[in-house]
Amino acid sequence: MMEEILKQVQAGHLSVEEAKERLASYENLGFAKVDHNRKVRQGFPEIIFGEGKTAAQIVSIMEAIKSKGDDVLATRVTKEKAKEILKYQPDFIYNETAHILFWKKEQQLPEKSSGYIAIVCAGTSDLRVAEEAAATAEFLGSEVRRIYDVGVAGIHRLLDNAEEIRNATVSVVVAGMEGALPSVVGGLVSRPVIAVPTSIGYGANFQGLSALLAMLNSCASGVSVVNIDNGFGGAYNAVMIDRMAGSEKAED
Amino acid sequence: MMEEILKQVQAGHLSVEEAKERLASYENLGFAKVDHNRKVRQGFPEIIFGEGKTAAQIVSIMEAIKSKGDDVLATRVTKEKAKEILKYQPDFIYNETAHILFWKKEQQLPEKSSGYIAIVCAGTSDLRVAEEAAATAEFLGSEVRRIYDVGVAGIHRLLDNAEEIRNATVSVVVAGMEGALPSVVGGLVSRPVIAVPTSIGYGANFQGLSALLAMLNSCASGVSVVNIDNGFGGAYNAVMIDRMAGSEKAED
Amino acid sequence: MMEEILKQVQAGHLSVEEAKERLASYENLGFAKVDHNRKVRQGFPEIIFGEGKTAAQIVSIMEAIKSKGDDVLATRVTKEKAKEILKYQPDFIYNETAHILFWKKEQQLPEKSSGYIAIVCAGTSDLRVAEEAAATAEFLGSEVRRIYDVGVAGIHRLLDNAEEIRNATVSVVVAGMEGALPSVVGGLVSRPVIAVPTSIGYGANFQGLSALLAMLNSCASGVSVVNIDNGFGGAYNAVMIDRMAGSEKAED
Amino acid sequence: MMEEILKQVQAGHLSVEEAKERLASYENLGFAKVDHNRKVRQGFPEIIFGEGKTAAQIVSIMEAIKSKGDDVLATRVTKEKAKEILKYQPDFIYNETAHILFWKKEQQLPEKSSGYIAIVCAGTSDLRVAEEAAATAEFLGSEVRRIYDVGVAGIHRLLDNAEEIRNATVSVVVAGMEGALPSVVGGLVSRPVIAVPTSIGYGANFQGLSALLAMLNSCASGVSVVNIDNGFGGAYNAVMIDRMAGSEKAED
Amino acid sequence: MMEEILKQVQAGHLSVEEAKERLASYENLGFAKVDHNRKVRQGFPEIIFGEGKTAAQIVSIMEAIKSKGDDVLATRVTKEKAKEILKYQPDFIYNETAHILFWKKEQQLPEKSSGYIAIVCAGTSDLRVAEEAAATAEFLGSEVRRIYDVGVAGIHRLLDNAEEIRNATVSVVVAGMEGALPSVVGGLVSRPVIAVPTSIGYGANFQGLSALLAMLNSCASGVSVVNIDNGFGGAYNAVMIDRMAGSEKAED
Amino acid sequence: MMEEILKQVQAGHLSVEEAKERLASYENLGFAKVDHNRKVRQGFPEIIFGEGKTAAQIVSIMEAIKSKGDDVLATRVTKEKAKEILKYQPDFIYNETAHILFWKKEQQLPEKSSGYIAIVCAGTSDLRVAEEAAATAEFLGSEVRRIYDVGVAGIHRLLDNAEEIRNATVSVVVAGMEGALPSVVGGLVSRPVIAVPTSIGYGANFQGLSALLAMLNSCASGVSVVNIDNGFGGAYNAVMIDRMAGSEKAED
Amino acid sequence: MMEEILKQVQAGHLSVEEAKERLASYENLGFAKVDHNRKVRQGFPEIIFGEGKTAAQIVSIMEAIKSKGDDVLATRVTKEKAKEILKYQPDFIYNETAHILFWKKEQQLPEKSSGYIAIVCAGTSDLRVAEEAAATAEFLGSEVRRIYDVGVAGIHRLLDNAEEIRNATVSVVVAGMEGALPSVVGGLVSRPVIAVPTSIGYGANFQGLSALLAMLNSCASGVSVVNIDNGFGGAYNAVMIDRMAGSEKAED
Amino acid sequence: MMEEILKQVQAGHLSVEEAKERLASYENLGFAKVDHNRKVRQGFPEIIFGEGKTAAQIVSIMEAIKSKGDDVLATRVTKEKAKEILKYQPDFIYNETAHILFWKKEQQLPEKSSGYIAIVCAGTSDLRVAEEAAATAEFLGSEVRRIYDVGVAGIHRLLDNAEEIRNATVSVVVAGMEGALPSVVGGLVSRPVIAVPTSIGYGANFQGLSALLAMLNSCASGVSVVNIDNGFGGAYNAVMIDRMAGSEKAED
Repeated sequence: MMEEILKQVQAGHLSVEEAKERLASYENLGFAKVDHNRKVRQGFPEIIFGEGKTAAQIVSIMEAIKSKGDDVLATRVTKEKAKEILKYQPDFIYNETAHILFWKKEQQLPEKSSGYIAIVCAGTSDLRVAEEAAATAEFLGSEVRRIYDVGVAGIHRLLDNAEEIRNATVSVVVAGMEGALPSVVGGLVSRPVIAVPTSIGYGANFQGLSALLAMLNSCASGVSVVNIDNGFGGAYNAVMIDRMAGSEKAED
Repeated sequence: MMEEILKQVQAGHLSVEEAKERLASYENLGFAKVDHNRKVRQGFPEIIFGEGKTAAQIVSIMEAIKSKGDDVLATRVTKEKAKEILKYQPDFIYNETAHILFWKKEQQLPEKSSGYIAIVCAGTSDLRVAEEAAATAEFLGSEVRRIYDVGVAGIHRLLDNAEEIRNATVSVVVAGMEGALPSVVGGLVSRPVIAVPTSIGYGANFQGLSALLAMLNSCASGVSVVNIDNGFGGAYNAVMIDRMAGSEKAED
Repeated sequence: MMEEILKQVQAGHLSVEEAKERLASYENLGFAKVDHNRKVRQGFPEIIFGEGKTAAQIVSIMEAIKSKGDDVLATRVTKEKAKEILKYQPDFIYNETAHILFWKKEQQLPEKSSGYIAIVCAGTSDLRVAEEAAATAEFLGSEVRRIYDVGVAGIHRLLDNAEEIRNATVSVVVAGMEGALPSVVGGLVSRPVIAVPTSIGYGANFQGLSALLAMLNSCASGVSVVNIDNGFGGAYNAVMIDRMAGSEKAED
Repeated sequence: MMEEILKQVQAGHLSVEEAKERLASYENLGFAKVDHNRKVRQGFPEIIFGEGKTAAQIVSIMEAIKSKGDDVLATRVTKEKAKEILKYQPDFIYNETAHILFWKKEQQLPEKSSGYIAIVCAGTSDLRVAEEAAATAEFLGSEVRRIYDVGVAGIHRLLDNAEEIRNATVSVVVAGMEGALPSVVGGLVSRPVIAVPTSIGYGANFQGLSALLAMLNSCASGVSVVNIDNGFGGAYNAVMIDRMAGSEKAED
Repeated sequence: MMEEILKQVQAGHLSVEEAKERLASYENLGFAKVDHNRKVRQGFPEIIFGEGKTAAQIVSIMEAIKSKGDDVLATRVTKEKAKEILKYQPDFIYNETAHILFWKKEQQLPEKSSGYIAIVCAGTSDLRVAEEAAATAEFLGSEVRRIYDVGVAGIHRLLDNAEEIRNATVSVVVAGMEGALPSVVGGLVSRPVIAVPTSIGYGANFQGLSALLAMLNSCASGVSVVNIDNGFGGAYNAVMIDRMAGSEKAED
Repeated sequence: MMEEILKQVQAGHLSVEEAKERLASYENLGFAKVDHNRKVRQGFPEIIFGEGKTAAQIVSIMEAIKSKGDDVLATRVTKEKAKEILKYQPDFIYNETAHILFWKKEQQLPEKSSGYIAIVCAGTSDLRVAEEAAATAEFLGSEVRRIYDVGVAGIHRLLDNAEEIRNATVSVVVAGMEGALPSVVGGLVSRPVIAVPTSIGYGANFQGLSALLAMLNSCASGVSVVNIDNGFGGAYNAVMIDRMAGSEKAED
Repeated sequence: MMEEILKQVQAGHLSVEEAKERLASYENLGFAKVDHNRKVRQGFPEIIFGEGKTAAQIVSIMEAIKSKGDDVLATRVTKEKAKEILKYQPDFIYNETAHILFWKKEQQLPEKSSGYIAIVCAGTSDLRVAEEAAATAEFLGSEVRRIYDVGVAGIHRLLDNAEEIRNATVSVVVAGMEGALPSVVGGLVSRPVIAVPTSIGYGANFQGLSALLAMLNSCASGVSVVNIDNGFGGAYNAVMIDRMAGSEKAED
Repeated sequence: MMEEILKQVQAGHLSVEEAKERLASYENLGFAKVDHNRKVRQGFPEIIFGEGKTAAQIVSIMEAIKSKGDDVLATRVTKEKAKEILKYQPDFIYNETAHILFWKKEQQLPEKSSGYIAIVCAGTSDLRVAEEAAATAEFLGSEVRRIYDVGVAGIHRLLDNAEEIRNATVSVVVAGMEGALPSVVGGLVSRPVIAVPTSIGYGANFQGLSALLAMLNSCASGVSVVNIDNGFGGAYNAVMIDRMAGSEKAED
C-alpha cells in the first residue's frame, strides 16, 4: 500500500500533502481503524465497564455508540444506576441478575454458530458472575446453555448434565469457594474450558484467592483462567472460540 | 483421690513425706502419667518426628522406647538415615515410600475395629504423603483400604470406588494441586473426611497453599483439614475416630 | 438392586418404561435420593447458608423443607432478616447470638448418643462462632457442653474444666487471635479436636490468618481444622463423630 | 442405549448377567472408555509430567504406551534423565531446550489444520517455557510459528511481527518479569490469547507472581491464563482451539 | 565555620555564651533552617496530606502557611471537605478530579524550565491519580503535558504520542490493572520514567499489588516506582528532575 | 561539656586545634564514642552477625576487638567456619548447639544482677535458637535458667516449672509451629516476656510466619516479639531489662 | 506451703475438708487468686478491650470493677459510646484522642518510679495510637514524656530530643508507613525500645504490614515489637519494665 | 522528515525503492535505529543481564558488541563464570564484589558531568548490590562517591556524611532489613533519591519484602524505588538524571 502511495506521488497523481495524510493515517489512525474494522467485521460491539462510572457517564457513552447504530453493552451496572439510565433510554434492556445493561439493533444478527457455549455454575451464590457471562455471550451472538447449581459436593447433578457440557464448543465454568468445578469439567470434556473464579466464600477464601489458585493448578489439561469475578472476560474468550468453531460445525 | 491421701495422713497411715510425693505426683508427674496411661489404655504408641533429627538421635530415642517393650514409629526418615539405623537395629521395619521406620511387638494387637479407614489419594505424586497416612494408621492398629490415583480430572475412577469409600468409618483424602478431591468425596459420604493438602504442584501452587485453601473452603460439610503434607496427622485423627466407631460396628 | 430390577423385567413383572425410570432414578435422581436417604437415615436435616440470601429467599427454602415435615436450620441470619422472617413464620426459633434460625418437629428425636460434644471457646468475642457451633450441634441432635472464656492466657480456667473436656466424645475448640487453645486442649484429651479459627483480633491478625495458621501447625496430634469463623462446619464434623461413638458408649 | 439393553433383556436376547455388565460398563468403565475414545478420535496422545519421576519410571510408562503403537510425550525431563532414557530407547527424541522427550509413529498424521499457532515469547530467558509450548503443540499436530524476543520494552520488534501474530488462529504468549506482553498482543489480535507467566525475574518477581497477576488483570479482552511456567498447558489449550478452527479455514 | 567561631572566642571577639548559641544553632536549629532554606531557594512550597485530617485541621494549617505569603497545596481533599473549606477561604482553588486544594501567590513564578513533564495515563479510571500528579507538578512550577487513555491494549494510541513523551525531560506513567504501560514507555524514551501504580482493577488486582509488582519488575531500564496511587510522589520526583534539567535546556 | 571546652579555649588552656578536635569528636566521632562509652559502662561487648561472612572476615574482626582487650561474640557461625577459626584462635570458645563463637576476658565481670533470665523453649527442634539466646545472655553477664521442652501440647510440663519462670526478671520464650507458648507464659507471669518465633515446622508454617503472627496476636498482655529465629535479639532485650532490675533485687 | 497444710492435718489442726479446700484452691482457684494478687500487689488494674463491645456491656463491666474500689480502664471506646456511658457514670474520664475511658480512685498511688517512659511518635496521624500508649502508661502509674512528630524524614527534630529519650527507662516508639523510627531510636539509646507499628499509610502499606515488617527487621539491637496499632500493649510492656527499674533509680 | 522524503520523490531525486526503504526503516527498523542512536549519542552502552546465561552465551554476546568497538557490561556474573570467560577474553575486567564484567574502549570518554552520584549503603552485607550500582554508574561515565556502612541504627555515621550526600546530583540508597535509610536520606537532601531494597536480612525479611515495602512507604518526598537487589537499575536511573543535571552544574 505504501508503494502505491509513493508511486502516485511520483506520477504526480497525489500531492505531498495528501500523501502525508494517507501515510500518517496508515501510521496513526490506521491502527485504530484496524481495531474498528475488526469489530465491524467480526461483530464484536463496544463493551463498557460500568463500575466506577456515574450513570451520566455510562448513558453518554452508550448513546454515542447507539447513535452510530452500533450495539452496546455495559457490565457492572447497579440497579440504582440502571433505573436512572432507563428513564432517559427506556429502550435499553437491563438484566438485573447479571448487572448488565445493553441495547441491540434487532435486525443485526451475527452469522450464527451452529454450536453453543455451556455456562456451568457451581452454586446459586455464583449466579451474578455466571449470568454476566451468559448475558455477555448472548449479546455477542452466541447460543448459551445454562447448567447451574452443579457444584462438586453433589457430583451427580453435574454428571447428569455431562452430555450437554460435552457437546458445547467451549465451556465457561464459574465457581467460588474451593474452585474445583473446572477441574472436574475439564476431565469430562475434550473442548476448551474457561474457568472464572468468584469471590464467593468466607474466611480463608480471601476474596477469591482460594478459587483462583485452585483453577490455575487444575490437574485437568485444557483449562485456562480469567480474573476473579470476571464473567465478562470468560464469555468474551468463549465467544471468540465459538465463532471459530462455527463454520466447521455448520457443515457436519 | 486427694481426699483419700489426706484421710490416710490423718489416720497416720501415710507419712507427710509420702503424702507430699503422691500429691506432687498427682500434680506434677500426674499429668504426664495420665498421658502415659492414655497411650497404654488406648494403644497409641510413641511417634517420633524424624525430620531435622540425626540418625543417631532417632535410633537412641527409638531404642529407649523399644527397651520398655513399647511400639515405636518415626515419620520423615530419609532412605539414607534409615539405612544407617537398620545397621544397628535390623529388626526395625522401613517403609520406603512412606519414609516411615517402626518397630512393633508382634503379639500386641489393639482391640480391632470392625470398620476400616479409606486412604484416598488424587495422584501418584501425592503417594509419599498418602503412604505416610496409610502406614501410620496401620501401625496404630486400624484396617486401611488404599484408593489411589482417583483425582477429580477423571471423576469416574473415583465414582467406581465410591462404595468402598462410603463404607469406611472415616476417610483420609490426600491431594495436591487444586485440592478438589476432599470436596467431591465429602459429597459422596456421610462420615468424616480428613483432608490432607500436599505441596505437590508447580507455579501458583505456592508449596501447597492452593490445595490448603481449597480444602478449607470446601463446599461439602464434614471436611476438616490438617497441615500441608501432614499424612501422619491425617491418619492420627482418623484412627481416633475409627476406634470410637469400632465397638458400635462390631455389634451390628 | 440393579439385578433385581433386571430380573423383574425378565420375569415380565416390570415394564421397560418402569425399569428405565427406576434405573434412571438410581442413576440420575438416585444420587439425590441417596443424599436424601442418608439424611433421613442419619438424621441430618437440611442446612441453609443464610449469608448473601434475602429474607424472602431464606423463608421460601425453609418453608419448602418444613412443608415436607423435615427439620430445617439456616446459619448466618442477621437479626434484621430474622425479624422479617418471623413475621411470616412465628413458629421458627431464632438464636440471636448464634445468628441461627431453625424449625424442628418436636416429636422427632434422633437416637441420642450417650456422649456429648464439648464446645470450648477462648474469649467472649469468639462467642458468635462458638454459639453457631453449639446451636448447630444441638439442632443436629447431639448433647452439648459449653466451656467458654478459657483462653490460654489464663491457663487454669481451662485446666479447671479439663475433666469435662476429656470426657467429651469430641471437642470443637473456637479461638481467634493467636489460636493457641486447640493445641493445649489437644494435649489434654485423647479424642478428636475440631479447631475453628475466628477472625477476632486486630492488626496482624489479618482476618483470622494468624489463628488459622497456628491451628494448622498445632504441635498436638489429633487436631484438624475448618474454615475461619465456620462454627457450623466444626459442629457438623463433631456430630458425625459423636454419632459414631454413640452406640459404643451406650453399652458401657 | 439403556432402553435397548432393557428391551433385549425383555426379549430374552440378553441374559441378566450380560445386561448387568453392559449397564455397569456404561456406568463405570464407560466413562474411562469415553476418555480413551476421545483420545483416539481426536488425536490427543498421552502426556507425562516428568518432574518428580525417575528415569526408570518415565521409561516404563512411555514404553507401555509406545508398545500400543500410541504416540507419547514427557515434559520436564532433565538432560540427565533424558541421557539415561535414550540409552534404552534410542528412537525417542529429546528436545533439550524444551526439556521434552517424545516418540511419534511417523505415519500417524492428525487431520491438519490449515491455520497455525503463534508462540510469542518476551525474552530469551523465557525460552525453555516457550519451547515447551512449541514442541508440545507440534507434537499434538498443530503448525507453530515462533515469534521470540519481542518483549514490550522494545515494542517495535513486536509490531514488526504483528501481522503474523494476527493471522494465527490462537496465540500462546509467554512472558516473565512484568508479564505485559499478553496485554499488548491481546490488543493487536481478534483471536484468543493464552497467556503463560514464567518465573523468570528476580526480587519482587516472587517466583512468577508478578507476571501471573499482571496477566490475570490484563486490560485486553480475550486473554486467559494458565499456571506459572506451564508451557504445556498453554499449548494444549491452543491446540484444542486450533483444531476447532481447522475445518473452517480449510474452506476459505 | 566551627574554626572561625573558636578563633573569635580565642580572640575575645565572642563570649562563651554567644559561641555556645551559635554552635548549638549550627547543631540543632541549623538543620531545620536548612530544610526551610531549601524550600525557599528551590521553590518547593509546603504540601499537606489531606487524608485523615478534618476540614478544620486542613484550613488552619493552610491559613498559617498562606499568612506567611507562602504557596500551599493539600492532596486527598474530598469534595465535601473542599466545600466546607472554600466557605472560609474562597480564594483557594479546588481541582475536583485531582482532589487537590491549593493557594498560590500570583506574582511568584519559579524560574521556568524550558522542558516539560509528560503525565502518561493508561485508562480513564486512573484519572484521579494522574490528575493528582499533573496538578501537583503544575503547582510546583513545571510545565505539564497530559497524554491520557493510552493503555497498552491499544498500543497505537500510545505510539501516536511517542514523540511528545520522548521529548519530555521526565515522564510520570500512571497505570492500574496489569501496570504494563511504564515498561512500554521505558522502552520508547531515554529519560527517566517514574511509574505510579494505581489500585484500579478488580479481583486479582489485590488493591494495586498487580500493577505495583509489574512496575518493579519492568524489563525496561530507567523505570523507578512510587507507592500505589501516589500521584503526588510521582510528580514530586519528576519536578526535582525537571528542575535539574532546566538550565541545561534553556541554553540549547 | 561544650561549655567547658569553650572556656578552656577562652582561658588559653586549649589550642584552637585541640578544641576543634574535641568538639568534632563530640559531634562526629562523639556519637560513636558515646556508643563505645555505653558499651564500656554497661558491659555490652561487641556482637558480630556471622551469617554471610567468611571465616577469615570473622576472625579478623574478632581479633581486632580482642586486641583491645574487649570481649567479643559472633552469632550464626557454622561448625565448619568455627573449626577453621579455632585453628588460628584456639582460645576462642565455640558453642556448637547455639552456633556461637566468643572470647571473654576472665577477670571482667559485670556487676551481677541478683535475678535471672528464664529461657523457655517449646520443643527440642527449637533448641538452636534457644541456645543462641541462652549463650548470648550468659556472655552478656546475666544468669540464665533453661526451661526446655515445655510445649503447650503437654501443658503440665510447663506448669511444673511455672514457679521458676515466674521468679525470673524476664523470660525469653522460644517456639515454632503454632507459637502458642508465649501466650501461656504471659498469662502465668507478671514480668516481661520476649517472644522469639522460630522457623521450625512444615507446610503451613511458611518459614516461621505462623509462629510470628500468633505471637504478635498474643491475648496475654506483656508479650513483645523479635524477628523469626532471632535468639540473639531476644536475649539482648532480656539482658537490658535484667540489668535495670538488678540493683533493685540486690537490696531486697 | 503444701507441706504445712499436710502437717496441720497430721497434727489434727486442720480438718480434711478444710485441707481439701485449701489444696484445691491452691490448685484450682489458686491460680486465679495469684492473678488477682498479682494485680493488687503490683498495681495493675483491670483493662477492658472496648472494641466490639456495646456501651451497655462496657459500663456494666466497669461498674462491677469500680464497685470493688478498683481502678478500671477501657481502650478503643469510640466517642459515641463514651458519650452514652458518661451519662450514667459522669465521674469516668474520657480521653478523646486515645479513645480511652477510665476511672481512678484518687488516693491510690502506685509506688512511683523515679524514671519515666518516653512515648516517641513519628507523625501526627499516628497520634491516636501514641496517646493510647501514653494514657495507658499514665493510668498504670508511670510518668510519661511525649516526644511527638519526630519522623525520620526530618531526622533533626528527633536528634533534638535524643537526650530526653536516652534518659527514659524504656521507650515506646509508634510509627506507621515505613516504620523506621524504632531503628533510629534503638541506635540512640541503651534501654529497651518497644516498637508499635500503626496501620497509618496507604497503598503498599497494606494495613500496617510495611511498618510491622520493618520493625521486626530492625538493624538496631534492643527493639521488640507488639501488634499493629496496639498502643495499649506497648505501654503495658513499658510499665512492667519501668517498675522493675524503679527502685534502682530511686536510690541513685 | 517524512515530508522531505516525499518531496525528494516528487522532485525525482529519490527513487520509489529508496523512498520505500527509508520510510520503512523509519517505521520498522527506525525504532531500533533510534534505540541505537540514543545509545551512541548519550553514551549508554549495551548491558547484559548475566544471571541464567552460560559463560559461553555471555562471552559470545559480549564479543559481538566489542567487535563493533562498543563498550559492554554484564551484571550478575559469578566468579566461576568470570574465570572461564577471562580465559578467552583476558582484556575484560571483572569486579568481584559487584559481580560485574565489562570491557571499555579507553579513549571513549562520555562528556563528563561536573556533578556526582552518591551511592549510600546501609550495611556491609548490602555491599554486593551497592557495588553493582557503583560499578555500573562508573561504567556509564558518571562520577561516583561511595558512602558505605551508614545504617540508621548509628545515625551519626550518616549525618557525618550528610554534606557529601546533599551535594550529589542524585543518590542511590541501598539497604536491606528494615529499609529505613532512603527515608532518612530523603529528609536530608533536595535532590532525587533512588532506593534499592536488598534481600539481606533473615526471618520476617521475606527475601527483601520488608525493605521493599518500607521504601515504597517512605514518609520522605523525592524517593522512588527499583526492584529488590537491582543495583544496576538504581544506577541506570541515577546516571540518566546525573547527565541531565550535568550541563547546568558545569556553568555555575
